[in-house]
Amino acid sequence: MHNIDKLFESVARKGHVCVGLDTAADYIPPLERRNRPDADVVLAFNKALIDSTWDVAACYKVQIAYYEEMGIAGLSAYAQTLRYIRQKGALVIADIKRGDIADTALRYARAHFTGDFEADFVTLSPYMGMDSIEPWLEHAGSTGKGAFVLMRTSNKGMRDFEYLETTPDNKRVYHRVGDKLASLAEKHYGKNGYGVFGAVVGCTERDEAAAIRAHYHNLFFLIPGYGAQGGAAGDAALLLRDGNGGVVNASRSILRAWNDAIKETGSDESQATNTYAAEAARGAVIDMRDAILEVSGGRGQGAGGREQGAGNRE
Amino acid sequence: MHNIDKLFESVARKGHVCVGLDTAADYIPPLERRNRPDADVVLAFNKALIDSTWDVAACYKVQIAYYEEMGIAGLSAYAQTLRYIRQKGALVIADIKRGDIADTALRYARAHFTGDFEADFVTLSPYMGMDSIEPWLEHAGSTGKGAFVLMRTSNKGMRDFEYLETTPDNKRVYHRVGDKLASLAEKHYGKNGYGVFGAVVGCTERDEAAAIRAHYHNLFFLIPGYGAQGGAAGDAALLLRDGNGGVVNASRSILRAWNDAIKETGSDESQATNTYAAEAARGAVIDMRDAILEVSGGRGQGAGGREQGAGNRE
Repeated sequence: MHNIDKLFESVARKGHVCVGLDTAADYIPPLERRNRPDADVVLAFNKALIDSTWDVAACYKVQIAYYEEMGIAGLSAYAQTLRYIRQKGALVIADIKRGDIADTALRYARAHFTGDFEADFVTLSPYMGMDSIEPWLEHAGSTGKGAFVLMRTSNKGMRDFEYLETTPDNKRVYHRVGDKLASLAEKHYGKNGYGVFGAVVGCTERDEAAAIRAHYHNLFFLIPGYGAQGGAAGDAALLLRDGNGGVVNASRSILRAWNDAIKETGSDESQATNTYAAEAARGAVIDMRDAILEVSGGRGQGAGGREQGAGNRE
Repeated sequence: MHNIDKLFESVARKGHVCVGLDTAADYIPPLERRNRPDADVVLAFNKALIDSTWDVAACYKVQIAYYEEMGIAGLSAYAQTLRYIRQKGALVIADIKRGDIADTALRYARAHFTGDFEADFVTLSPYMGMDSIEPWLEHAGSTGKGAFVLMRTSNKGMRDFEYLETTPDNKRVYHRVGDKLASLAEKHYGKNGYGVFGAVVGCTERDEAAAIRAHYHNLFFLIPGYGAQGGAAGDAALLLRDGNGGVVNASRSILRAWNDAIKETGSDESQATNTYAAEAARGAVIDMRDAILEVSGGRGQGAGGREQGAGNRE
């Protein structure tokens, strides 16, 4: 089965939240950080959050930059985080935004679809063209792997190049990328009709969202920009299709939910633990899940009740 | 001193060759690969090549994909390769093509400009816009670090997006990227007049090379596409300026020069060693260096004699 179908079914069962494990050591309760190397601290925190959220989140996204920053030890924590997620039977997107020419793309694909850093999906950057994307497809056929290619991102700088209008029809660069991805999806798709490779489309530009969703009906979207970057549930919902077709990423609002809980309850920050942070994260995921379900009208095909008990776990 | 000035001076002293350590284990003499883990084999081979070429090459470029493919052990070999080059006083470009939004870019910059993976330069991908490039500048001011941003690459797929014409003046996307980089270079430059961040411009499209060089006079170029990808010395020379202003990357033709030497001499391949491969690599670097010097008319300011003795080492 293609991972894009597993993701579709995960959304149908668990909602649209993609938990972003962009875990910086200073997001973690001070008590858990004492006398331990940052990479160990981050891994232990990630495991606690995965344990507390995997039945209410569609998938995870792990931003490799946060781990590369810690060097070899950090990449070991990255590898172990991915393994932990996959051992739970949950899906993980490696947010690596790689993009390089053919031979090199094959190497990268082996790096991130097999071995120490095996993930279910990766993110890719399209600047160099489709010969930097297509080599990754080899693993889509053999082991069902998937990818999300940067199309229209949620940062301010997206206007520099993604938004440029091209000749002769004034289509923006990001539309040109989307068109290539839609063509690819016509040839390589899963049983739910979505291409095995989807697109990254941010929810920070409400005006174009409905048109993008309508036009690229066969692309599954990875949707950043929720929360800290300004996107709301209603913005994200515009990029969904029949209640499915996308996952919405949030990171800091989930990883740091324990800070808000401390403030609300007037608790002592110095006594907060990973267990406390994990419970707060679970609450934040459920709130976000329900906010998106509320405005999107459900989870699409296969949607069950609104609340998931432990007995419904995958 | 900015690394871009160190690179300028290195070109003036040693010519234009950038040795690409895109080292796959199967490029290495079989004798050296027996009963050893791939990552160890690659590191030992790299060290032999660095020892034999650092006085005749302008710099090194290490393609991280080849190391990521080997997992944690591979990234350890990557880190040690970078360290070995820098301990020689030579310059190294980390070919990582990263490109991510502001906060993440800061993490990546710390990952590749400090710590285990410290390099002198990185390569960056501009798709997401200038806020994925500018955060790296922090290290240009403090420790002289540099970057080469993908502008017009040497792969076939470059026509997909880099070549799109934009409104209203039909400038191609890669020109728009170049224009932003040229503006950046007007604010952040070294004592030789080149921006601290340069551009990746392939030498596979001869027609546009002279125009690109003339237009982007303040950008130092990292030039791929030589040799295996079809570019010749004359093509690369079109992208140089007054005999300097660019380094020309070659990888396989240098790493695998020992295969050609075996064929030419009728030697026994099974007896080839790293020492043999390193000498062949040195020969290939000198030949390439001289071919480019021949057509480009020298090394620019500071150029000395054509042959470098050991006494001229940095």
